[in-house]
Amino acid sequence: MTTGARRKRRMGVEERRQQLIDVALDLFSRRSPESVSIDDIAAAAGISRPLVYHYFPGKHSLYEAAVRRAAEELTGRFAEPPEGPLSGRLLRVMGRYFDFVAEHGPGFSALLRGGPAMGADPARARTSAMIDEVRATACRQVLGHLGVDTPGPRLALVVRSWVGLAETTALSWLEAPQAMPREELESQLVHSFVALAAVSALHDEQTRRVLRDIVRQEPEDGPLRELATQLAASAPDR
Amino acid sequence: MTTGARRKRRMGVEERRQQLIDVALDLFSRRSPESVSIDDIAAAAGISRPLVYHYFPGKHSLYEAAVRRAAEELTGRFAEPPEGPLSGRLLRVMGRYFDFVAEHGPGFSALLRGGPAMGADPARARTSAMIDEVRATACRQVLGHLGVDTPGPRLALVVRSWVGLAETTALSWLEAPQAMPREELESQLVHSFVALAAVSALHDEQTRRVLRDIVRQEPEDGPLRELATQLAASAPDR
Repeated sequence: MTTGARRKRRMGVEERRQQLIDVALDLFSRRSPESVSIDDIAAAAGISRPLVYHYFPGKHSLYEAAVRRAAEELTGRFAEPPEGPLSGRLLRVMGRYFDFVAEHGPGFSALLRGGPAMGADPARARTSAMIDEVRATACRQVLGHLGVDTPGPRLALVVRSWVGLAETTALSWLEAPQAMPREELESQLVHSFVALAAVSALHDEQTRRVLRDIVRQEPEDGPLRELATQLAASAPDR
Repeated sequence: MTTGARRKRRMGVEERRQQLIDVALDLFSRRSPESVSIDDIAAAAGISRPLVYHYFPGKHSLYEAAVRRAAEELTGRFAEPPEGPLSGRLLRVMGRYFDFVAEHGPGFSALLRGGPAMGADPARARTSAMIDEVRATACRQVLGHLGVDTPGPRLALVVRSWVGLAETTALSWLEAPQAMPREELESQLVHSFVALAAVSALHDEQTRRVLRDIVRQEPEDGPLRELATQLAASAPDR
């Protein structure tokens, strides 16, 4: 107790703020955000309720700080060296994405569903903007792997659609984690990227070039070749 | 003026409520919902501000009623007779979906983005539930066209992913309507349905059967055949 108190006194303002954000992010991740109280956060941090209020004006501002922390953490997981076939890179990123989703399950669902995300309109607009920024970063990362600086509207839509697809898939997985193994979903998302690009390539030269480059990098027995075979087999007269 | 007043007196309670919802939906559709005031609604309905409050406790309840009306309207547009090749059916539904999106642009964006949707948490949860119900109806309709009553998790995910893709695509179109013609986006969405199903079919017998049935119904020179050809062509060694 004495040691604890001494340790508390030694913690600087910024350090204490960061500790509270850690604790809050952990609670908001594991339970639905509305069900977490300042008392829960104070108890988990081992400090008094008034001391929490000394650092944060209320639960909503802690929630916002926790969302910002989570956004930074997720963005960090997108980083992937530009080496090897694209499908391998995307698969590794998907693996880290599903790790993140698994760690922050209930909070991730609540946030993306929008409904139970908390706060007044300006705070909501800020968390909404943070989520959009994470999506935009994800899109830029993917375009970087494709070697594209200035995507046309069709390629931009493919990438944006795919990022949305990853969200829908992750939410479905959280709802029924037993229904499909996550490894299958991760690899399915990589396949879906190529499938969506193939659709767009019907109308777009830039996407067509990107798609050809991707497929050329793939090993003979890689997932993209499988997919192409499957699609060809679906059209019985070819 | 006298005629107008006489007409107003003759309007019954339910008729007046419906008229206010019409007017509100029109305003919330054409401008960002936060920028619409009760005064705007009163002016557009040709009645006094206090009379609006006589029928609705406030702007949020009118907004909720307008969202409910829009949800019913959109759901109505999903209905499509189960005749002819699936791609034609989906294409007609997409045409009506984009009509709806064009008519309700700014309100549709604001609502789906979640950020600026208005109201306290219980009201938000209700509008959120309405949107989810529209999505669920869309999924059931698509499954009906596929002739599937009890989808496995993989086919259910394909359909749900596709409904999400239609939303992302519609939002992208609203942001930059000049970037891609809507007819192209509508037909691209139909292609994407088949492409996502083809990916899922790699792991799922039910989706594989559905996909084969779909492709069999297609005309020789239909869009699905094109897609299969394109995918096959993307894999240079096949």
